This record gives sequence, structure tokens and C-alpha cells, in this order.
Amino acid sequence: MENRCFYNSDGDFLIVPQKGNLLIYTEFGKMLVQPNEICVIQRGMRFSIDVFEETRGYILEVYGVHFELPDLGPIGANGLANPRDFLIPIAWYEDRQVPGGYTVINKYQGKLFAAKQDVSPFNVVAWHGNYTPYKYNLKNFMVINSVAFDHADPSIFTVLTAKSVRPGVAIADFVIFPPRWGVADKTFRPPYYHRNCMSEFMGLIRGHYEAKQGGFLPGGGSLHSTMTPHGPDADCFEKASKVKLAPERIADGTMAFMFESSLSLAVTKWGLKASRCLDENYHKCWEPLKSHFTPNSRNPAEPN
Amino acid sequence: MENRCFYNSDGDFLIVPQKGNLLIYTEFGKMLVQPNEICVIQRGMRFSIDVFEETRGYILEVYGVHFELPDLGPIGANGLANPRDFLIPIAWYEDRQVPGGYTVINKYQGKLFAAKQDVSPFNVVAWHGNYTPYKYNLKNFMVINSVAFDHADPSIFTVLTAKSVRPGVAIADFVIFPPRWGVADKTFRPPYYHRNCMSEFMGLIRGHYEAKQGGFLPGGGSLHSTMTPHGPDADCFEKASKVKLAPERIADGTMAFMFESSLSLAVTKWGLKASRCLDENYHKCWEPLKSHFTPNSRNPAEPN
Amino acid sequence: MENRCFYNSDGDFLIVPQKGNLLIYTEFGKMLVQPNEICVIQRGMRFSIDVFEETRGYILEVYGVHFELPDLGPIGANGLANPRDFLIPIAWYEDRQVPGGYTVINKYQGKLFAAKQDVSPFNVVAWHGNYTPYKYNLKNFMVINSVAFDHADPSIFTVLTAKSVRPGVAIADFVIFPPRWGVADKTFRPPYYHRNCMSEFMGLIRGHYEAKQGGFLPGGGSLHSTMTPHGPDADCFEKASKVKLAPERIADGTMAFMFESSLSLAVTKWGLKASRCLDENYHKCWEPLKSHFTPNSRNPAEPN
Amino acid sequence: MENRCFYNSDGDFLIVPQKGNLLIYTEFGKMLVQPNEICVIQRGMRFSIDVFEETRGYILEVYGVHFELPDLGPIGANGLANPRDFLIPIAWYEDRQVPGGYTVINKYQGKLFAAKQDVSPFNVVAWHGNYTPYKYNLKNFMVINSVAFDHADPSIFTVLTAKSVRPGVAIADFVIFPPRWGVADKTFRPPYYHRNCMSEFMGLIRGHYEAKQGGFLPGGGSLHSTMTPHGPDADCFEKASKVKLAPERIADGTMAFMFESSLSLAVTKWGLKASRCLDENYHKCWEPLKSHFTPNSRNPAEPN
Amino acid sequence: MENRCFYNSDGDFLIVPQKGNLLIYTEFGKMLVQPNEICVIQRGMRFSIDVFEETRGYILEVYGVHFELPDLGPIGANGLANPRDFLIPIAWYEDRQVPGGYTVINKYQGKLFAAKQDVSPFNVVAWHGNYTPYKYNLKNFMVINSVAFDHADPSIFTVLTAKSVRPGVAIADFVIFPPRWGVADKTFRPPYYHRNCMSEFMGLIRGHYEAKQGGFLPGGGSLHSTMTPHGPDADCFEKASKVKLAPERIADGTMAFMFESSLSLAVTKWGLKASRCLDENYHKCWEPLKSHFTPNSRNPAEPN
Amino acid sequence: MENRCFYNSDGDFLIVPQKGNLLIYTEFGKMLVQPNEICVIQRGMRFSIDVFEETRGYILEVYGVHFELPDLGPIGANGLANPRDFLIPIAWYEDRQVPGGYTVINKYQGKLFAAKQDVSPFNVVAWHGNYTPYKYNLKNFMVINSVAFDHADPSIFTVLTAKSVRPGVAIADFVIFPPRWGVADKTFRPPYYHRNCMSEFMGLIRGHYEAKQGGFLPGGGSLHSTMTPHGPDADCFEKASKVKLAPERIADGTMAFMFESSLSLAVTKWGLKASRCLDENYHKCWEPLKSHFTPNSRNPAEPN
Repeated sequence: MENRCFYNSDGDFLIVPQKGNLLIYTEFGKMLVQPNEICVIQRGMRFSIDVFEETRGYILEVYGVHFELPDLGPIGANGLANPRDFLIPIAWYEDRQVPGGYTVINKYQGKLFAAKQDVSPFNVVAWHGNYTPYKYNLKNFMVINSVAFDHADPSIFTVLTAKSVRPGVAIADFVIFPPRWGVADKTFRPPYYHRNCMSEFMGLIRGHYEAKQGGFLPGGGSLHSTMTPHGPDADCFEKASKVKLAPERIADGTMAFMFESSLSLAVTKWGLKASRCLDENYHKCWEPLKSHFTPNSRNPAEPN
Repeated sequence: MENRCFYNSDGDFLIVPQKGNLLIYTEFGKMLVQPNEICVIQRGMRFSIDVFEETRGYILEVYGVHFELPDLGPIGANGLANPRDFLIPIAWYEDRQVPGGYTVINKYQGKLFAAKQDVSPFNVVAWHGNYTPYKYNLKNFMVINSVAFDHADPSIFTVLTAKSVRPGVAIADFVIFPPRWGVADKTFRPPYYHRNCMSEFMGLIRGHYEAKQGGFLPGGGSLHSTMTPHGPDADCFEKASKVKLAPERIADGTMAFMFESSLSLAVTKWGLKASRCLDENYHKCWEPLKSHFTPNSRNPAEPN
Repeated sequence: MENRCFYNSDGDFLIVPQKGNLLIYTEFGKMLVQPNEICVIQRGMRFSIDVFEETRGYILEVYGVHFELPDLGPIGANGLANPRDFLIPIAWYEDRQVPGGYTVINKYQGKLFAAKQDVSPFNVVAWHGNYTPYKYNLKNFMVINSVAFDHADPSIFTVLTAKSVRPGVAIADFVIFPPRWGVADKTFRPPYYHRNCMSEFMGLIRGHYEAKQGGFLPGGGSLHSTMTPHGPDADCFEKASKVKLAPERIADGTMAFMFESSLSLAVTKWGLKASRCLDENYHKCWEPLKSHFTPNSRNPAEPN
Repeated sequence: MENRCFYNSDGDFLIVPQKGNLLIYTEFGKMLVQPNEICVIQRGMRFSIDVFEETRGYILEVYGVHFELPDLGPIGANGLANPRDFLIPIAWYEDRQVPGGYTVINKYQGKLFAAKQDVSPFNVVAWHGNYTPYKYNLKNFMVINSVAFDHADPSIFTVLTAKSVRPGVAIADFVIFPPRWGVADKTFRPPYYHRNCMSEFMGLIRGHYEAKQGGFLPGGGSLHSTMTPHGPDADCFEKASKVKLAPERIADGTMAFMFESSLSLAVTKWGLKASRCLDENYHKCWEPLKSHFTPNSRNPAEPN
Repeated sequence: MENRCFYNSDGDFLIVPQKGNLLIYTEFGKMLVQPNEICVIQRGMRFSIDVFEETRGYILEVYGVHFELPDLGPIGANGLANPRDFLIPIAWYEDRQVPGGYTVINKYQGKLFAAKQDVSPFNVVAWHGNYTPYKYNLKNFMVINSVAFDHADPSIFTVLTAKSVRPGVAIADFVIFPPRWGVADKTFRPPYYHRNCMSEFMGLIRGHYEAKQGGFLPGGGSLHSTMTPHGPDADCFEKASKVKLAPERIADGTMAFMFESSLSLAVTKWGLKASRCLDENYHKCWEPLKSHFTPNSRNPAEPN
Repeated sequence: MENRCFYNSDGDFLIVPQKGNLLIYTEFGKMLVQPNEICVIQRGMRFSIDVFEETRGYILEVYGVHFELPDLGPIGANGLANPRDFLIPIAWYEDRQVPGGYTVINKYQGKLFAAKQDVSPFNVVAWHGNYTPYKYNLKNFMVINSVAFDHADPSIFTVLTAKSVRPGVAIADFVIFPPRWGVADKTFRPPYYHRNCMSEFMGLIRGHYEAKQGGFLPGGGSLHSTMTPHGPDADCFEKASKVKLAPERIADGTMAFMFESSLSLAVTKWGLKASRCLDENYHKCWEPLKSHFTPNSRNPAEPN
């Protein structure tokens, strides 16, 4: 393990590895976090990450609030992400002298500071409490959705939420689109066309996202800012409008996710210009769309 | 229409017709309520019901609180029973003199009182406001449930709730078990065995309830009081434990429901003795059960 | 002062003297309470009352809750009953030995108990805190009502409220109908015809209540139980429907009040039978009423 | 109708036309909004406005929150602005091709963006829901105020409020000073002198504002920032202090309003310099004031 | 283990053994509960208790609510009873056939019912969740109190609380008076004389209660109903008023406790008559008291 | 008194004099505030301060919120800073003409504005209400802490709090470390080593702060920003780890305090550079620390 560690005085990190395993050392112990798992490391915790190959992923940082499970409402006592599936580290420590050589890097008010010390900070022999880092395997998500007709809002896929103090408004939600059965009858099954009061940043861990089969690749990202309409591409619309509906598997082998926020997201200059990966033609995926009536629409008043 | 009407000073009625149509006259107008529909008539509203054949059903009365839609939580802005599907009467009136002959019957503190008047009380020419009777067709319920594995709590089938002031505790919930797709893999799909902190009164409007195929007939009822364990009968257990799981329709042609309350329910003497319909052997449906491990159980940590 | 005092272990008393002054001794000091004033004596406080002539009034007892000022909502920081107009006693004591002769009477669970002691209980030399008896002069009530058109709900006359834990529902409200200006144009100005989700017990301290000029006398009472319709008598209706509307004084020289409760009130046998004061013909005040359209109704969409 | 429309991704608009009618096209239908009416168009809604003459007015924009009716508190179930008087559009659409020529302008993070499309966005054939633009005619405001003595806070004139998450603190209130009766005895009837924890921006739709008869003209505005004292001008003070009090009409033919905010308002350079309409002598309206006791003050303890 | 078990459908039990150890079998596993420990067994859980000698104690039953730790307020994140010191059973089971011979006794609506079954109900091989019985050793209570002057309310000794829905009002509190340091200067250190809005039932597990050295024995109980004044006996008063104050140990070797409830407690006939243990002279402990000024009173404004 | 006064439109001041008395004139009257007292002057209040010698202290300004007493939780009805010990001014005024010469200085949006007027603003003859400045003598703080073992969080020393809208999170707390008894057994008694989610600014009014005996002088300050660990210096650690524990006085003659905020504090350039008082070696107070086990640690499971 390197002689460097990090802690964030500003906020909490939700880390979504997309490629490569992360071996995370923390004061609480070690966690191996693999793609299709996520982990959260909160304010003030010192940590260090070992990687083993080309490695990449997504990070969401929230300020002044911690992630928590959504209140389940009528879903009841269990469902979606269950508390028992969140794993925390077991105490691990090293009694290692690094005279003058251990560097602790701190992010405070958006700037980085460094200090040197003589010992490894991972010297916590035992601990108790519930302010700990944790990880979660997305395959444990107990998926709930329509089993008759119509389309549930994507909030039903919420894994974790960082609540604002205004009820119903999140600083950030972490939402996934996991493998599941699609069975809604008399329904256009893909995500509907909509405007959102929240910003939607989508990423893809693996597979093919159902509403954008082309162009949106694992490791990529899309950003739909507040109140600008969007939805499935024209191909998806055509197919989903005409297909004969029967139970089918959706998203097998795929894991797309969304960072959704009531705040606006700024894009870095690098993201817009230097990355050379910007999809200049993204908006064209909707151009072939024509207004017309969708046969797969609901009219539940008809005889069953 | 008869020269008699009724109003309840004590509480609100939720009426579940099981056989025969109800033509309900209220001060707000008329409603035709048929089996598979429900209606609510609140405190103080004068009403009169015409029936046309042998007619029966269920009534749930709540005190000091009105029915409302459950908060949807992560389900989002739409789902379960949608507000737009609740129908209210259009103003209708009659200008009818009934000298000394119109009887208004009032239920107050559990007793009935009668008064005579000269005119029909259904003389409201127009009205506005939102304290009105309403009806709802259960086929409009947008059913949500597990689409991957595991079993959602029956609270996910809540149509209406009469909340107590203790968050999460209902005076009464009206819950249905509507036609839907069952797709959960690695799961024992019928209702699980449980004890409940609430009283469960079940009724059946039509069809066959999935967890008790025999004995529980349309128009019947069952009561499982708080904390006494119950669940599917032995037959249901055997079949559901061994069946190869695939998407299947559940409860087509059936509508069972539950009045669920955090309070205890008293049974009338007539219900226990005089009705001659008591099922003395009900508990025997569980006797053939033997403890054993259910193959259709979840182990989501196995490879998908 | 007598060698007897009283305390109530069950609840708080709101006392409304109607005739005769009350000189109330409490452990906190003395209060002279006269008609058109009210006072509140809470659980556990020992008190004794001297009267000087024929004396009568009304008492409202509430359990498990104290009276408080209503939240003013858009009325703002001041209005209705202002906190500064509630008066509390100044410490007063007597150092009086009454060997074996001072009787303390206690109401506990609706029963009376007595104990003897050697000293006067009014021996508190000084005190501080805010759990004190208080009095309020009803003439200080800052009356608010419609100054354009339409009719405000009588809740706008609330002096004190004893809240239940269900928001918007009171165990008991103390409401008055004080002298004020009536200026609403295009409006039927007396109390409107209504059914109430609460029980209404009305009393009259002095003068003539605007909606029932005859029969309802100072010291009398009327009870309209939940959900039974009522309103002004036929005379009042006739006059108020036809009068040309101009600013006028209402209730000068009059003080009617209401104990309003979300619970049902029981009437004692004495009240119903033995009092010989029951008004057997009360309901006849409404018999001359005929349905017809009231000219003094609002149509604000017409040009002003 | 022009080939341009607009939507605001940042917040909601409350529009107060002062001169000229507005014909507003929205995706929900059309609204004609005239002076003395207001309308609200929320985030994300595309709209376009036709005007017919010299037209002006006021706009208030709020972020992260919607306008709602104030909780009425003791005012009860009805009063102030009643829900039934808010009008929403009926669905209207045009099936109009504008090849490459329809411009959609978006305000996002305070900047304007434009996009072209081939069709009119006003192509919504039908809709349901409650996230809709609306209008309200200020003459429907049911005015409530003192009908005995003293002065209610101006919060009692609140039409709409955009609440912060701190109870009792509004991001913005829309308050009006409508035609009404003034009847308070023993009271200085104009607005009292005060400092405010909120910013007060006042405007005048028509007539003469009671506390500033001169200088404050329809279409004008005044801004009193937090905690700086203000009140009626010297003339108003003199008259209102000496006048013999009787019921009188206030503000007939006048409609002044206030945008009140717990935040501080910035004034544009144009507003301060370039407009040539700044009233440099505004503060002089108070200079003639001398401290003295007001005869029309309250002493309700005196005999009535 | 006997062939009988019990479950309570009505409420939760808090058990305070005073003499003799309890070996409690539950569906969740076994707990050995000894004097100076408490345990809670909730609604619906089947349990059976083995005792080994003369055994006695106290039981508090609450309905419709569970015990929880009090909100700590300014005490912060830790203190009083810490969550980590509550112990729950580890799964334990027996695979025991008892053909027709195992009796399950149920308390439902205050009555006892019995049913027979063929197997031991303690056949739960494993479980997860947080609805479990638990025990707590009172010596782990982190005692907080005045460390300068004055006397904290006994609420600061709250171990567990069963909250009503009215904030600040408990159905029942479990409060202890544990061994601790007494250091308050200028203070009368024993419990002060008071009236309580709650009922106080006190018990004694071992030792001598500081405010009643004689007569109140381990295994005994005292009940002070609402609003009747009480406090230390005359001896305690004399001593504590005159003693020179220095740090001293309080209650070493003693554990008194209080069941405190906002409801009134009824005493059984047996408790009042048949037990032959009633202390007829209890009230005499206060008779020697004379009013006088206590030297050990606070005047913090004097120089320290 | 000078012909200048000040008011703050932005927020409230909490003033902590450290040296020299403050004679504060306000519109509400005069307050003499001496070291070991604090005072609060809220938004909008005009005030002027006379000093008599070299004078210094600390000021905390909060925006959009007022200071209040913390909710006491299980501490009960009294304790910590008691309401009765907060003192407010008695009305005082001067009728003083200062033609063209009285300057009112206003802080608005962080900038200063000045206006001239002819009279003294301290001309308020009488007032009523509860929006007033106040002062509090810190010696009246009723200190509460551990009286058995373990260490209470410093929140238990909170005098005043300015709450954010997120429960449990303060914009700012004012916390003191007053003279008191230290009696916790089996405990390391000084402040423990910790990281804080809040910023800690400490000051010293007089004496020697227990955890930093050297270097931290009266009138000085220390700032520990969020999530950077800190605690007692090495000397303090050594002594407190080895000392035989007995009741002892802590902080006699000392008054340290903390401004604690969930926000980050910026330090002025003057504070960092120009003051020539920066302690460049502060971090060295921890360098001698070695990891080792503390004998004075808790193991409450051992026999008492």
C-alpha cells in the first residue's frame, strides 16, 4: 500500500466503479469493490485505494447531508435496497512507521492540502459505531414495478437518496435500471418522454441501456438538464410502440444508473472540449420521431 | 325512491358491494355502484340506496378520520389508485313535497334516531367543494409488485387508508389482491406465513383467493386477529413450493380484499353463532403442513 | 376565606362566570373574575372561590391537554386574543394554622377525595414559572372578519384552543361572538346554515344572540351535536335576507360563546329532565323556513 | 401567433399585468390575462404572449419552490383567495408545420438559449394533471381585517406564498391592498410605521395607494429593504391621526400590491440610473413628521 | 423446559426481575436475565421462562407502542443507556416433537386462550431483523446530572420510553436512580417536593432508596398518583438541609426505579386488600415536616 | 453618549466581551455587559456602545435565524441556561435634538451606509413585545455532565443555538466550558480526540483552558476546521491518563467558549498575516503524543 491517503472535509463520496476492482483501505478496514457494486466513503474518513489494471468509474459528491435509504411508503418494511445487504468493513490495522514519509491529503473547501506524518493512519485496532463506509452489490436490489399496466416513475428504482430539507426534493438520488421482468400490458414500456424538475446524469456500468441502444456505451455519460424534454430514441419508440406485449426480460446483462439532482450540474471544460468524446450528434436520435398515437397505450376501462 | 334517508354522525362508510348493484342517492347526486367498485359516504351526508335484486356486501366504518390515498413514497407521482379514477356525483335534485312523510334516520353514538320532514332532502340544486362521496372501480388499480425476486408486503396493494396520528399506523387500510402478473424468481410467491400487528378481515368479491382455494367463497369473510400466525393452506404451500417458476397471471377473475386495522375487531354474536355459516374446521387447512425447506427461496448471491 | 380548597387531578377548568363575581384564591395569588372575563385553572392547582351574591356560569373541563392561543396563520404576529391581555396572579399567601381543620378536596378519575391538614395551603410566599392560572377580559379580543363580502368561519372568533394531536382538530375550542362591525356586502350576514363535524355547546353571558333573538337567554345553553344541521331561526333568516346592507354594529351589549369539541357531549339526566328548563319547542324556530333564493348572496364577478 | 416561444428552466413566473391585455399561449391552452388579474407560469412550460397595445407590468420569479395558498389558520376553510377562483386553461392545440422556423428560447441558469424546430410546440391535444399555469382575478379576494379595533398585519392580505423550508418565512409573498371597508375604532388606520425582516417591493396597478397619495403612480414601484423603517407619508399621518372615525371605503378603484421576500433584492443599474424615473426625493415624504401622540390610538380598557 | 409457552397479542412487556434469575426461551433464542438487568419481550413473541428459586419482580405492559431510547437532545450522540449495551439473543432451536402436548397460551384483549400443538414452537433455526427481545444491564447506564448546582429533573435518568403521539408526553417511562456521584453545591440534593402530571410507581431492586430510607424495601412498591404532592420523608429533609455539602457517592449498592405514566394506574383489589402488605402509615413519613427555609438552597448570583 | 448609532440589517450579533465593560444603549433601554456576560443584539435594532478602557472581545454574527435555547430533551424542564436568567433592558429614552448631526450607520449586505437625522433614535418611551436584546451571565449556567463514568459530548455545554432547518444541525452554537466538578471514574476526563462535522472556533475569557494549558491565552482564539482531528496537548494527555481519579474542581477561575458552526469559517488576511499573533507552532503541541492504551478507560462490565 502506498504511503498516501486522502480525506474529504467537504462532503461524502458515492463511488461507482465501472471497470477494474478497487481495494479500498480505510480506518475502518478494507473493502474490495468491484464493478456492479457501489461504495460510500463519508466526510473525514481517511482512505487509500489500490487498483490493479485500467480502472475507471463515476463519483458523486454531496455536501451537508448523508446518503440514506428512501422511505418505502406503501412498499412496506422490505424492498428495493434492503439494509441487510449493505456491507461494512471489519477492523483491520497496520502498525507501520513511515518516518516523515506518510502524506495525508485533505480536500477542504474544494482545495487540496497535504501533511506529512510518521505513521500509517490505518492504525485503528477496533471500533464501534455506525458512521462507517459501506458497499452494496446492485444485484441485491429487489426490483419493484408495474405488474398490470402503466409505467412507474423511475424513483421506484432509487437505491440511495441524499435528502434536502424540503420534503420530496433530493440533493441527489442514486437510481439504477437493473435486470427485471417487464410485464405491463396496454403500455408503452420504455421510459416515457418527459421534462424533469431535476438534472439527470446517466452512466452505464455494463450492457446496453434499453432506451438508447446505440452510442451510449459503458463508461459513458449523458446529461439532461432540468426542464429540457427527452426520452427514448426514435428506434426504441418505433419498436416499443408496435411490439406485441408479453412478459419479457429487460436489461439482462445491463446496469445503467442515474445521478439525479434537484440542483443544476456544471460540466467542466475538459468534459465539453478536451475529452474528444463528446457526442455532437446526440440530439439527432430524436429527429426521426413523428407525432402519432401509440397503440400500446392504456385504456383500462375496456373489458379485461 | 323511498321516503327514507340516512346519515351517520359517527363516522365514514366504505361500502364494498359484492352482489347486486347499488343506486345511491345523496345530496350531491346519484351514483350507481356495482360489484368490483367501492364507494365512500362520509359523516353527515344524507343518502338512500335502491337495490334491484338480492344484494349483499361489506361495510367498513371509521371514526374521527377520513379515508385518503396512501403517500406513494418512492413509487412517485402516480401509481396504485390514481386520484383521477375516483368519481364523484354530479348535482341532481328533486323538488318533492312529502307532507309529514319523509323520514330522516340518523346514527349518532351508535344509536338510531328518526325525524320526519315535509320535503325530500335531495333538494340540492348545485354545490361545490371537495367533501363529497365518491366511488372507485378496482380494475383501475395500477398494481405494483416485485419484478425480480422476493415478496413485497401487502401494503403495496393499499387502495385507501384511514391514518391514525401515529406515523405508519392505520386505523384501517383497504387493501386488494387484484389480477396481475406474478414473475418473481427464486421466490415462494403466495402470501408468506406471518403474524401481524394489525387485525386482518378478508373478504372475497369474486373468484378464488390464491392462498385459500377452497372454503373461502365470494361473500364470505375471514378474520385473523393480531399476532396469531397464519398463511396459505397446505395445498397452496405444496404447489407453490414445487412449481417451476415462470411468468404467470395471478387472480384473473378474482378480487379478494382486506380490511386491516391496528385496532382489534369484535365479532357479533350473530356472526359467531346464529349465522350458521361459521367454518368450524378452518384451522385444519394448516394441519397437513410439515416444516421443511422451500426450494423456491431466494439466494440472490448466486450467479444470475 | 373558608377552610376548604379544591384541586383537580384530571384536567383543566375553563370558567366562564355569567352572573356574580368570583374571588379566586390560588396558590399563585388571588384573581377577581367578573362576567365577561374568563379564567383557566389547571390540573393540580389548589384553589378556593368566594362568591358574593347569586352566582352562576359555565365550566369546560379538558383532559390531557392545556388551552393555548390558536396559531394565527396569515393573521400575523398580533390579533384575536393577544398574549399581553392575559393576566396572572401576583404571589399572595397566608400563614394560617388550622389545626386538623383544613380540608383539601381532590377530584381524581372523576371521584372526589378529601384530606385534612393543619395549615392553609395558600402559603406560597413567592413563585416563578409559567404554569399558572390566568384570566382574560373578552372585551380585549381583537375581532377580525370579512371587510368586503362573504362570511368567515366562526373559527376566526377562537379565543383559546385545546388541541388534539390531529392537526386541525381540537379537543375543545372556546369561541366568542363579540361586539363588532358587520360590513360584508352581497352577503347573508348571520351565521350560515351548516352541519358541523364538531359538537357546539352555546352559552350567553349577556345580551341577545344575533341568530336566535328569542328564547336563548343569558345563562341558558344550546347543544347542536355533530352533523345535525342548524342555523338562524326563521325570523332572522327573513330579516337578514331582505335588509339593505350597510355598515352596522353587531352584538353590541351582547356576549355569546361556544364550547366546540370534536368529541360528543353527553347531557346529564338533570339537564334533560329535572331542570324544568328544557326548551321543548326549540326545533320549531326553523319550521317556518321555506327554501328560496337569498338576494343578499355573493356574485363577485359582477361589476363593483 | 409568432414562431417563437419561451420556457424557464430556473423558476416560476408570477406575472402582474398593469397595462394592456396579455393573450398567453401555453402547452395547456390559452389564457387572456387583463390588468387586475395575475397569472403564474411555472418551470418548464412553453409559452408565448401576444400583446395588443402598449403593455407593461411586473414579474416576480421564484426558484426551487412553487406558489401556493397560505394556510388559513383560524380563518378556517374558506377566505382570502379561494381555490375555486383560480382558473386554468382548457386544452387547445395547433397542428402547424414551421419547417426549420420555430424558435424555442430557454432560460437556464440565468442565460438564454435558442433552438429551432419544425413544428409548433402548442400541439398538445389533451392533458390531465395539476401542474398547470393559472390565473386569478384580484377582485375575487375575500378581504378580512379588523372589525373592532387595532390593525392586522399585512400578511392578512396574502394572495399567494412561496414558502421557504423555515416555517413562517417566505421566499416571496404576493400581497394586495384591495378595496374594502375600514371600520376599526380607536385606531390609526393606515399602515403603521415599521421595520421589516423582509424586503418590500410595492407596485400599483391602478388608483392611489392610501399611504402615499402623491408620487406613487400606477406602473411605478418602491423598494423598502430589510430593517429600514418606513410608513405613511406626513400628510397621511396628519389626516389619519385627526379624522373622526366612522366606517369608510378604503382603496375603491385602487389595487396596490407587494412582492415581499425574506431575501434581499438587488436593483439593476438601469433601474437606478438609466430609467430617468428614480424619485430622488422619496425620503422627503417623511421629513415633516414630528413625534407626537396619536389620538386615534387604542385603549380598549376604556368603556365601550 | 416445560411444554408451555406464552405470547401477548395486546402489548409489550418490560420485565424487571428483583429476586431470582430468569432463563427466558424465545423464538429468537435464550436470555439469562438477572436482577439489576431488565428485559423487553414484545407483542406476538412466544416465550417461556424457567426459574430456579423463589423469584419475583415487576412487569410493565404498554399497548400500541414500543419502548425506545429517549432522544438525547443536548446530551449529544452518546449517554444514558447506550444502544451498544442492549443485548439480543442468538438463534437457538429445538427440534422436539410433543404430539398433542405443547400448549401455547395467548393473551388477547386481556383474556387468556390456549391451543395445543405437536411441536415445540422454539424451532427457529435462524432469523434476521430488528424486532427482537432484548435485555440491558442497569450498571451500564451512563449517569448524567448536575455538576455545579441545582437539581436536574428525574427525566435525566430515563432508560427507556414508550412515547405517546403528543410530543413530550410518554405512555410510560422507565427511570432508574443508579449509583452516582452527588456534587451539586448550594443545593438540596434529594428529590425535591413536587406534584407530577404523571403517575409514579416506584420499585426497589436492591439497597435503600435515598429519599425514603425506612419502610421502602426491595420488592416493594409505592404509587403517587397524578397531582398529589410528595417528596422526601422528614428525616431525609432534615439531614439534607443541614449537611455540609461535599462530593459524595449516592445510592451505592442500591437500584430504585420508576414506572412513570401520563395515564392513571388502577390498583387491583389484591394489591389494596388481600396482600396484607399495604403500608397504612405511609403518609405519616411527612407529618413531622415544618415549613422552613433550606440553607442548602441556590443563590448562584453570589460570588463563587 | 456619542451622536452615532448602528444597526445591522443582515443578521444578529452575539457579543462576548473579554476585557472592559460595555455600556450598550439600545432603543429598548440600556445594558451594562461585563466580561463573563454575553449579550445578543438582533437585526434592525439601533444601538451604541460606550467603553471605558481598553476593551476587546468576540462577536458571532448569524444570518436568517435567531439564537434560542436548545431543546433540553431528557434534561427536562430546567437546566443549562435557564430562561429566567436572561435579562432584558427596561425602557429608557432621551428627548434630545441633534440638528443635522445624528448619524445612523447601517450594515446592509455586508456594506456600511450612513444617514443623518435631527434627533436621537433612543427616543422610545415605552415598548412591549419579545423581540428584544438581552444579556446573560455565564455563571448562571447550570452545568450538567457525567456523574458515573464516560464523557458527555460538549453539546451538553450549549448556552444558545442558532438552528438550521436540518434537525440536529446548527448554523452556530455558543458553548462554554464553565467551572464544575469532574467526577467520572474509569474515564479519560479531558476532551477526547475527535474530528468534528462542524467548525470549532474557541476563545478564552479568563483563566486557563483545561486541554491546552500553555499558549492559549485570554483574548486569543483557535480554529479547528471540519474533519481535521484534534484534542488535548501531549502534556494534558500524559497527566490525565495517569492521574488517580477523584472528585476535583475543573476550570475554576476559567471561562473558555466555543463558536461551533456547521459552516466553514473564513479567516481574514489580517488574522492570518498582519496580526503578528499567529501561533506558528500550534500543531507541535501534539507531536510528543505516542499511541498507547489509556489506563483511565472505561470497562463498566467489571465489578463495581
